[in-house]
Amino acid sequence: MTINKAACIGGGVIGAGWIARLVLNGIDVTVFDPDPEAGRKVGEVMENARRAYRQMSPGGLPEEGRISHAATLAEAVTDADFIQESVPERPDLKHRVLAEIDAHAQKDALVGSSTSGIKPTDMASAMTRHPERLVVGHPFNPVYLLPLVEVVGGEKTSAVFIDRAKALYASIGMKPVVVRKEIEAFVGDRLLEAMWREALWLIKDGICTVGELDDIMRYSFGLRWAQMGMFQVYRIAGGEAGMRHFMAQFGPCLAWPWTKLTDVPEFNEELVDLIATQSDEQSGAYSIRELEHIRDDNLVAILGALGKHDGGRGWGAGELHNEYVRRFSQPDDDR
Amino acid sequence: MTINKAACIGGGVIGAGWIARLVLNGIDVTVFDPDPEAGRKVGEVMENARRAYRQMSPGGLPEEGRISHAATLAEAVTDADFIQESVPERPDLKHRVLAEIDAHAQKDALVGSSTSGIKPTDMASAMTRHPERLVVGHPFNPVYLLPLVEVVGGEKTSAVFIDRAKALYASIGMKPVVVRKEIEAFVGDRLLEAMWREALWLIKDGICTVGELDDIMRYSFGLRWAQMGMFQVYRIAGGEAGMRHFMAQFGPCLAWPWTKLTDVPEFNEELVDLIATQSDEQSGAYSIRELEHIRDDNLVAILGALGKHDGGRGWGAGELHNEYVRRFSQPDDDR
Repeated sequence: MTINKAACIGGGVIGAGWIARLVLNGIDVTVFDPDPEAGRKVGEVMENARRAYRQMSPGGLPEEGRISHAATLAEAVTDADFIQESVPERPDLKHRVLAEIDAHAQKDALVGSSTSGIKPTDMASAMTRHPERLVVGHPFNPVYLLPLVEVVGGEKTSAVFIDRAKALYASIGMKPVVVRKEIEAFVGDRLLEAMWREALWLIKDGICTVGELDDIMRYSFGLRWAQMGMFQVYRIAGGEAGMRHFMAQFGPCLAWPWTKLTDVPEFNEELVDLIATQSDEQSGAYSIRELEHIRDDNLVAILGALGKHDGGRGWGAGELHNEYVRRFSQPDDDR
Repeated sequence: MTINKAACIGGGVIGAGWIARLVLNGIDVTVFDPDPEAGRKVGEVMENARRAYRQMSPGGLPEEGRISHAATLAEAVTDADFIQESVPERPDLKHRVLAEIDAHAQKDALVGSSTSGIKPTDMASAMTRHPERLVVGHPFNPVYLLPLVEVVGGEKTSAVFIDRAKALYASIGMKPVVVRKEIEAFVGDRLLEAMWREALWLIKDGICTVGELDDIMRYSFGLRWAQMGMFQVYRIAGGEAGMRHFMAQFGPCLAWPWTKLTDVPEFNEELVDLIATQSDEQSGAYSIRELEHIRDDNLVAILGALGKHDGGRGWGAGELHNEYVRRFSQPDDDR
C-alpha cells in the first residue's frame, strides 16, 4: 500500500519534516499553512533534507514529488489519500482543523495527527463524518531522518485505519509502533517529559549546566540508546542472571530519594533565563542551521554505522535504514 | 598525569569494565574480589573488551598491563596510585571497604568510587586518615567503551584530588564531567531513574511491552542523544527563535498530566514477572554474551561514525574517540 497524493496541514518544523520525507519519496504533497512565511520555511527544511538524503544515497536520488501550496485547507485535502495534520498543540485549533479536514477529505483517506500528546478520542470528537479514519501518527524531529512514528487509535478509530496507517508510514521508510492503549503523551513523550522535568530541577538547583547535562547524556547512555532501548540494556547489565537479577538489584532504589518526583519546578522567568543563557554558552557559536546540519550529518552517520552491523544486515534502525537507502538506488519504475 | 599502578576493588560488571579499560591502556592492575568466580568473570569482560578494541584499532593494540589477583584488599591497594572501588551498592559495605582502603593506601593515591548514587560525604565518613582523596568516579557500562565518568566530590574532598581525578580519568580516554553539587544519584542516574520509573508505569499499565518501548526509544530520541543532549536538541527544535521559544511552547505541558509523577509503581512479583517475561520475548533469542557483542559492535561503529564528522575532526564522543584510537596506533614509548 502506497501513498498517491498527500496533504500536509501545517508547515512548521514537524509539518515541513513530513513534507520533506514525502516529497523525497517521490510523492506529490499539497500544503496548507496560513503563515505567509510557510513557503520559505518549508524550503529551508527541504534543503536540509536533500542534503542529508544525498549523503545517504551518493549515487543520486529519484525524482522528487511536487510541492504545491493550497489557498484553503479544503483545496489541500480534497484529492489526498494521506493527510497529516501538524498544527500547533492547542486543543481548540486541533478540533477546528480536524473538523475541516473531515468535511472535505475523501472518506477513505487516512487522517494522521502529529500531536505529541492529545488523545485521539478527544480529537476525533470534532469529526462528525468519519472519525474512524483518525489516528495519531506522532513522529520525531527531524521527521525526514528519524524513522519512528507512534500510531495511536482512539475509541472510534477502526482497525482498518490502524493497519492502513502502519502500511502507509512504513511505505515512506518509517517504523510504526502501535501504542496499545490511548493515554496522554503516548509513550515517547511520557519518557521525554519524565526526563525533562528532572533535567529542569538539576539546572534550577545548580547541580550542573545545560552543557554539562548534555555531555553527561551524550557520552554515556545516549550512545547506548541509539541501538538498544533501556530494557535490553538493563537485561545485559543483569549479566547471565538476566532481567530478574537486574530488577532485584536496582528495584529498591525506586524508593530512594533519587528523583524530585513529587514536584514540578516552577516555570518562571528566572528558570527560563538561566536555561536560555546556558544554552547560548553551550551552542551560541553555531547558528540553528549549522546545528541542524551537524545533527543531520551525525544521524546519517549513525544510521549508516548501525546498517553495517552483522556483515551489512544491520541492527535496529540500521536494518531499516539499509532497506530505505536501497530503495533510493533503484530506478523509479521499480518503486 | 598518568596512572602507574591501579587497584580495582570489586570485579563485577563495572569493576571488570574498569580493569579492562586500564589494562588495555597498558596499566598494571591488582584486583581484589573475594568472589571465587572473580577471575573467570574478569576474564570474560576482558575478552569482550579486547574484541571491541581490536575493531577500534585494526592495526593492533599496544602491550596490555598485567592483571594480578590479590589475596587481601590491603595487598591490592598498598602500592597503587589509582584505586577504584566497585563493590555492590550497599552503604555498610561501601563504608567497610573504603575504611580498609584508607587504612592501607598511599596517602596521595586517588580513591574513586563507582557508586551510582551514594553521596561522597556519606562514604568519606568511613575514612579517618585521608578522606580528602575520595571522589565519586561514576562510569557507565560498558566502562571500556563508554567514555563518561561523573566526578563528584564530598565536603572533605580536596580540589587537588578533583583535579587529579579529572586528569587520571582523561588519561585513560574518558570524559570526566565534574558535578557541581553533591546530590544522591548525581546527574546521570537522576535522569535514568526518572525515565525508568515512567517506563515501569507504561509496562505495568499495559500501554506497551518492553520490546515496543525499546523500539520507541531506539528509532527516535535514542538516535539523537548519541550525539547531542536534550538541551541542544530542544534548542534546534525551537528553530531560529531558539531556546526561549521552545520553552514558551512546551513549558506549559509540564503542568499537564503527561507523567505519573507523583507516584511510584509498586515493585511486586507481578511487575517483575511481566517485565522478565516480555524481556525474554524481546531478547531471549540471544545469549547475554551475544547481546554484549552486538552492543559493543554498535558502540564502536557509532563512535567511529561520530569520529568521521567534519572531515575527520569528529563530534562529541567521536572527537574524543579519535584521540583515543590515535593513541593505540602509536608506539608504546610515545604514550
